[in-house]
Amino acid sequence: MDEIKHECGLFGVYGSLDATEKVYQGLYSLQHRGEESAGIASTDGSSIVWHKGMGLVGNVFKPRDLRRLRNSAAIGHVRYSTIGRSEWQNAQPLVAEYSRGQVAVAHNGQLVNTSSLRRDLERGGAVFQTQTTRHNHTPSDSEVILHLMAKPEYRENLSGLLRDLKGAFSLLILTPEEMIAARDPNGFRPLCIGKLKDGYAVASESCALDQIRAEYLREVSPGEIVYIGKNGLRSETFAPAKPSYCIFELIYFSRPDSMIYGENVHLIRKRLGAKLAEECPVEADMVIPVPEGGNSAAMGYSQASGIPLERGFVRNHYIGRTFIQPDVEQRQQKAEMKLNAISDVVTGKRVVVVDDSIVRGTTSKSRFGLLKRAGAKEIHVRISCPPHRYPCYYGIDFQIKEELIAAVRPLEEITEFLEVDSLGYLSIEGLLSCTSSPKDYCVACFAGKYPVQAEIVKKAREGAEEWEEKAGEHTIVV
Amino acid sequence: MDEIKHECGLFGVYGSLDATEKVYQGLYSLQHRGEESAGIASTDGSSIVWHKGMGLVGNVFKPRDLRRLRNSAAIGHVRYSTIGRSEWQNAQPLVAEYSRGQVAVAHNGQLVNTSSLRRDLERGGAVFQTQTTRHNHTPSDSEVILHLMAKPEYRENLSGLLRDLKGAFSLLILTPEEMIAARDPNGFRPLCIGKLKDGYAVASESCALDQIRAEYLREVSPGEIVYIGKNGLRSETFAPAKPSYCIFELIYFSRPDSMIYGENVHLIRKRLGAKLAEECPVEADMVIPVPEGGNSAAMGYSQASGIPLERGFVRNHYIGRTFIQPDVEQRQQKAEMKLNAISDVVTGKRVVVVDDSIVRGTTSKSRFGLLKRAGAKEIHVRISCPPHRYPCYYGIDFQIKEELIAAVRPLEEITEFLEVDSLGYLSIEGLLSCTSSPKDYCVACFAGKYPVQAEIVKKAREGAEEWEEKAGEHTIVV
Amino acid sequence: MDEIKHECGLFGVYGSLDATEKVYQGLYSLQHRGEESAGIASTDGSSIVWHKGMGLVGNVFKPRDLRRLRNSAAIGHVRYSTIGRSEWQNAQPLVAEYSRGQVAVAHNGQLVNTSSLRRDLERGGAVFQTQTTRHNHTPSDSEVILHLMAKPEYRENLSGLLRDLKGAFSLLILTPEEMIAARDPNGFRPLCIGKLKDGYAVASESCALDQIRAEYLREVSPGEIVYIGKNGLRSETFAPAKPSYCIFELIYFSRPDSMIYGENVHLIRKRLGAKLAEECPVEADMVIPVPEGGNSAAMGYSQASGIPLERGFVRNHYIGRTFIQPDVEQRQQKAEMKLNAISDVVTGKRVVVVDDSIVRGTTSKSRFGLLKRAGAKEIHVRISCPPHRYPCYYGIDFQIKEELIAAVRPLEEITEFLEVDSLGYLSIEGLLSCTSSPKDYCVACFAGKYPVQAEIVKKAREGAEEWEEKAGEHTIVV
Amino acid sequence: MDEIKHECGLFGVYGSLDATEKVYQGLYSLQHRGEESAGIASTDGSSIVWHKGMGLVGNVFKPRDLRRLRNSAAIGHVRYSTIGRSEWQNAQPLVAEYSRGQVAVAHNGQLVNTSSLRRDLERGGAVFQTQTTRHNHTPSDSEVILHLMAKPEYRENLSGLLRDLKGAFSLLILTPEEMIAARDPNGFRPLCIGKLKDGYAVASESCALDQIRAEYLREVSPGEIVYIGKNGLRSETFAPAKPSYCIFELIYFSRPDSMIYGENVHLIRKRLGAKLAEECPVEADMVIPVPEGGNSAAMGYSQASGIPLERGFVRNHYIGRTFIQPDVEQRQQKAEMKLNAISDVVTGKRVVVVDDSIVRGTTSKSRFGLLKRAGAKEIHVRISCPPHRYPCYYGIDFQIKEELIAAVRPLEEITEFLEVDSLGYLSIEGLLSCTSSPKDYCVACFAGKYPVQAEIVKKAREGAEEWEEKAGEHTIVV
Repeated sequence: MDEIKHECGLFGVYGSLDATEKVYQGLYSLQHRGEESAGIASTDGSSIVWHKGMGLVGNVFKPRDLRRLRNSAAIGHVRYSTIGRSEWQNAQPLVAEYSRGQVAVAHNGQLVNTSSLRRDLERGGAVFQTQTTRHNHTPSDSEVILHLMAKPEYRENLSGLLRDLKGAFSLLILTPEEMIAARDPNGFRPLCIGKLKDGYAVASESCALDQIRAEYLREVSPGEIVYIGKNGLRSETFAPAKPSYCIFELIYFSRPDSMIYGENVHLIRKRLGAKLAEECPVEADMVIPVPEGGNSAAMGYSQASGIPLERGFVRNHYIGRTFIQPDVEQRQQKAEMKLNAISDVVTGKRVVVVDDSIVRGTTSKSRFGLLKRAGAKEIHVRISCPPHRYPCYYGIDFQIKEELIAAVRPLEEITEFLEVDSLGYLSIEGLLSCTSSPKDYCVACFAGKYPVQAEIVKKAREGAEEWEEKAGEHTIVV
Repeated sequence: MDEIKHECGLFGVYGSLDATEKVYQGLYSLQHRGEESAGIASTDGSSIVWHKGMGLVGNVFKPRDLRRLRNSAAIGHVRYSTIGRSEWQNAQPLVAEYSRGQVAVAHNGQLVNTSSLRRDLERGGAVFQTQTTRHNHTPSDSEVILHLMAKPEYRENLSGLLRDLKGAFSLLILTPEEMIAARDPNGFRPLCIGKLKDGYAVASESCALDQIRAEYLREVSPGEIVYIGKNGLRSETFAPAKPSYCIFELIYFSRPDSMIYGENVHLIRKRLGAKLAEECPVEADMVIPVPEGGNSAAMGYSQASGIPLERGFVRNHYIGRTFIQPDVEQRQQKAEMKLNAISDVVTGKRVVVVDDSIVRGTTSKSRFGLLKRAGAKEIHVRISCPPHRYPCYYGIDFQIKEELIAAVRPLEEITEFLEVDSLGYLSIEGLLSCTSSPKDYCVACFAGKYPVQAEIVKKAREGAEEWEEKAGEHTIVV
Repeated sequence: MDEIKHECGLFGVYGSLDATEKVYQGLYSLQHRGEESAGIASTDGSSIVWHKGMGLVGNVFKPRDLRRLRNSAAIGHVRYSTIGRSEWQNAQPLVAEYSRGQVAVAHNGQLVNTSSLRRDLERGGAVFQTQTTRHNHTPSDSEVILHLMAKPEYRENLSGLLRDLKGAFSLLILTPEEMIAARDPNGFRPLCIGKLKDGYAVASESCALDQIRAEYLREVSPGEIVYIGKNGLRSETFAPAKPSYCIFELIYFSRPDSMIYGENVHLIRKRLGAKLAEECPVEADMVIPVPEGGNSAAMGYSQASGIPLERGFVRNHYIGRTFIQPDVEQRQQKAEMKLNAISDVVTGKRVVVVDDSIVRGTTSKSRFGLLKRAGAKEIHVRISCPPHRYPCYYGIDFQIKEELIAAVRPLEEITEFLEVDSLGYLSIEGLLSCTSSPKDYCVACFAGKYPVQAEIVKKAREGAEEWEEKAGEHTIVV
Repeated sequence: MDEIKHECGLFGVYGSLDATEKVYQGLYSLQHRGEESAGIASTDGSSIVWHKGMGLVGNVFKPRDLRRLRNSAAIGHVRYSTIGRSEWQNAQPLVAEYSRGQVAVAHNGQLVNTSSLRRDLERGGAVFQTQTTRHNHTPSDSEVILHLMAKPEYRENLSGLLRDLKGAFSLLILTPEEMIAARDPNGFRPLCIGKLKDGYAVASESCALDQIRAEYLREVSPGEIVYIGKNGLRSETFAPAKPSYCIFELIYFSRPDSMIYGENVHLIRKRLGAKLAEECPVEADMVIPVPEGGNSAAMGYSQASGIPLERGFVRNHYIGRTFIQPDVEQRQQKAEMKLNAISDVVTGKRVVVVDDSIVRGTTSKSRFGLLKRAGAKEIHVRISCPPHRYPCYYGIDFQIKEELIAAVRPLEEITEFLEVDSLGYLSIEGLLSCTSSPKDYCVACFAGKYPVQAEIVKKAREGAEEWEEKAGEHTIVV
């Protein structure tokens, strides 16, 4: 599928009688962050019970599961992954027992020093049961963290442990006594705290707090550990914050109704659309979004340009995993089945189409083709982010380079490939100018500059070199 | 659930090598017309094979089913029904064998003389195997039609048979030799014809024709039979047309990208919104739709009023049948889970909320409550159709009268119940003025005037009286 | 599969508070008579509810189904059929509504005048929804009976209706008022009555009566109708009895713990084994049964011959539908997987193997091969029935003639094919001499003489001729 | 359920092109050793792939799973466990990665020093993900073994590792290079080796070797490790053998067609029956087995006593997990549903009933009740093993002491409870005299003498004391 896969969504509740049910509801709100597996672990203060499985939250949990897990503290997880890494044993939270008792761990992000951590652990006798890739059998980051927690030197020193992790991690840890939330010093992945009448909730996105009517308090700070237990909430700083928030959360991943890094996602996207209208203007009769991703930016583009907003596409929400691809005559792509163009709207019109990304280009091309067949006179494509050219080492599962059209082709060729009349991307500067603190964002996937320490860059470089071997040219600046 | 249930969607293809797969795709496009059961019957020219089941198209058909049904002529059906009538044997198409051989029948609509037809058939020895209600065991209209087709007097006289059916019927009939489409003289339910390279397609809505790249030709006319066979398409008029198209198709049921009664649904809805702005103006900061139903009308309201369109709600597409209702503490409704309000957008603002209907009122109330909790200063509700007060006897499964808030309460009380600042409905005249031929529409559910012959009205009256016994007052004018 | 398929099992209970649960239990006891589909219909005295599905009783019914069907009168059915006729709509009981109200029908057997009955019904306008064969779309006998019941001339004349049915039928009919059991004048298929504390039970085999602790009363007589209602049991004779009981029920189908035609099946089979020892003696070291079918006859053979009984085979009860056939290297048949030979028992021994039938011969051959590989010195096969050479028109689904090894090969060739040292079948006279009334049995499948009236023989002949066209020679004597 | 649960069955194949399919077939033959979960791991020489799940072999594996696992070396496992320990993550083989690469482990038996091994491992930082009990979260023995394999001191020293395990273990280990089989020095659980044309097979019971036509070679010796790789089979002794074979394998668990400890199970059981006739004679008209368990012993009893063997019970093979317990009126137990008595056989007769065990006594009682209701005049129960009075620490999951009727009641009380005319158990000496080397068997569950070293006895004692606390009196002699 021609989509950018995200890693995970986290949700935890402590101190509410129906914590498990709240986590269940919260996971529904975070389902867009991971459709591959779902899990909940909960505790009654003495032991941890859990349930997880492959598929959507709605398929994984039956009423009897929720009843069995009913407790006053619980954490949950939803997970994405590409084909081949998708196995039951990789579903989270990961629950285990070590010298201090039971513990459950849920993780969003990606460590950049997994391999060296694992090598050290194996030397000491560690046994790994998860696998994140078919080929090199790397254990999941959660399992590595679990093993580190069990090491004598870290057992009473979570701060020290977290300092030794490099890369992106937003974490939820549940023990029979407390729920712990932590976020890496760069704050790559979001994580926020909400207040409940009798307790607290922690979520990847604030939309999940709304769902259970928790009051949004604040983000977990980069470099912060938050302990939530019987005596309330206690904060600790394990490393100084040096924010490099993932800007793709704002552009693409997060739900429009979420507050991410202190900003509302929909409003940010409207600003991106407005900026795009400024940077890439065009004379046209209407602005139409590619739903759902382009909805907010198209509204911004329309208001900034004065070109009326219209509805050119209708989305079919029923096309899902069970759709059987036709294999005869005209081969309609599943992706194409998802949208239909409204002929009466676009016939004879000059149309600005706003979307949030172009990955491989094939899905985009077939969608714009729908407009053409529906009679559009001109098609001007506007993308609310810069061309995406570099790999991400912090938790976004981009395709390999050849599959990123912007990484291997210049703008004119892409325009030609898409068979559209013009194509405009937002600039990196334009993008950052729409945020309230431009210097606090990671734009590595657009610019190739990675916000990581020297030692880590080496690791990243290894990956990058592999990447370069395949398609050449990009630079990594430390 | 607080939703208006529709009866069915029809799709048929004749003359295309992959007719069955096209019908499968077409049913995906008509899934919104019926989520309860799905079925396809196809023929190779000598016998009919079929597959049907409960649930969504994507769950009913496996690849091996499509392979087994692979043929060059096929008809399909999706079906809605309320709880209690939902049984396997009611799924369509209904396939049977009689003196002329095999036949498959698919039906959208509702006959008003089912009971008398059935009484006559039973007197002659007919045996009914379908049941549409738990209580009175009425056979499905399709089975009644099947029995009539087998009666000696109708076997060679389909026109005569159709003349004896009273009420709403859009029909697809498949025999080993041909595919037959027919529509009642009032044309209550839509049905249109598309052209394929090597054959024809017939669909409840044109969006399904787009899906298989069939060219939209025209509607099946009220009172018309269309025979499609080896020698192409042949038309016959079994009764003079006296159109009374169901206006609810335009307001509510049909997909925005469909052409219904010759008009594009999205553009009609924009006109409804514009008319609504004219009839029920208000001073406000923004117009927001209740997605998805209010999207087009909100756009029309905004453009006509000059009040900017905004996005105040985000919809969670994952909430479905499998969602487990929480049963503790604050009871969040499933309906409420489906939407979240964007606080940063509406806080301190005067908001016009546009939706396409209010049925029982409880779902609407909880949705508007989301806006209030999100900080909206004023909430002005605008509904893009008149208050719905009367039963439908032509295929729309409205709730019983007590459950229609507009049938039992005056406007002020509804406003109060919803806890909003103002409430406006479109007038019947305003509604009709947005169509190109106002006199050709049935507005019985708003006005209580039923476009049916005297004898039938009696039957309708019986139902209506039953209705009146429950909640009083409405009149039936012939 | 190399097995003889039976048609059906019937079970009904009237007058017991938990009639539905009793029927459920009874169907478990009759499961060997039909593994393809199962169904129960029950009534509370005013309307009939039902549930049926494909597969074993244990898979078809969930606790909620039993709860929903809970009533004081119920009938149930299990059904076998060969591939191609296995469709949901053929599952029984068949429930329908006609002028006299609701009715459910369950049938075991096979009519020989289905085609002419159907032709007449269709001429009158009947519509058939079941199909028993892929090729000629013959409706199921149950549906034909249902249509006849609805005909004005039969509505008040069940005796007359049953007199017009030709062939084999054991019937259970449920209406809101009563439960009716009937059996054809030849009594081809078994049907017996049991007494419960508060009501009655009717079953294909008495083992199902034992299961619910009903007291065995008697068989339903050939040509008898039994009405069971509020006023107890009432009997009626619709035709004089002329018994021709299916002898295969004793030899093969029925459970050893059942009373069939007034005789215990296990004891009859022991007698068959003893007779076989008399007719086909051999010097040997041990007698071993092919389990389960040969168990009783082997015991009889051993006791009559004085040769010790041993256990040479062990059966694997887990091999079922889900077993995946290996497709590589040595291809072990699923049938072969079901048995293993005990090497230490048979090595160097002269073994008499007793089984209840040889159909195609391939399964038997592979089983005897197991003994040979396990080291048996001599293998003497003894079959507790005569060679099976002719088709059955009364409800047993024998393979086509080419697949009956005894129909196309003489004894010596079969022995050679099986690669055994000797082979002996019981004679027809020997077989009949083991029963208490030899003249009351149908042995058409061994002897080719059919106990049917002239008109019907014609119909039977047609089938028989078709049979003859394929493989020659057998005669039908009227 | 009133049954003795066993732990596991193992099967492995090395060197055959279709090793995975052979393991699949072999697991079918070992299914009686574990119905709770099944799994297969296989290797192509470079990495290990696997599939496992809850339920029977036939439900766990689909054709696509077998295709995906297709390789020339594979090990498989079936597992039983009591309620509460039954979780996905406990299914075997357990597959993991450690410093030497990937490995899969399958285990049958039970270690008696799991707790101390685990305590040591946790002190060193080990993390456990399996749980074998709900209450104390003990990891599965397989996981403990896996962790030990990863410890630096054991990595190159499997012999040393195995010497440090105390208790019962038959093991199969698969690495990309080889398949390893090992058995504890007492040889508690069986394990045997077979020869294939191109490789070797290892199985818990020889019946599984027969299934894939492997030639039975010999048992893996107590204290032996067998390495099977490209260069064939290599044997190593890690500890001197001091056999104490589990005698329950012969009496109860193993299939009658298996060779266990070098003896055929069926023939041993016949000897047990003959000895029982000698020790507990009775005057009677017939001997009948409780099928299937009592079949072989009943045959022995009959031949030794001269009392004719009869068939008094018929078993219903369809009663399984899906059977819904009736909850009204006369409550028939599921256990009772499984058997029916043949009235015509036992009426008025003095019957000797032979079975292989009495656990709680309730199931036995209801079965003997069937005979009584069927009319038996006298019922004499003979059990082909001694009364079972003590816990097993080597892999048999006996019920807690109160649930063993023989542990808490004297013989006369049991006879009275069962409502039978007499009851006889085989003596321990009688039992052992039927084997070829009486001193090599463990009869701890009958005699209370445990074949374990001092240190271990302490551990065993702890459990035993817990046992004693509950029901008193039994002694443990070292």
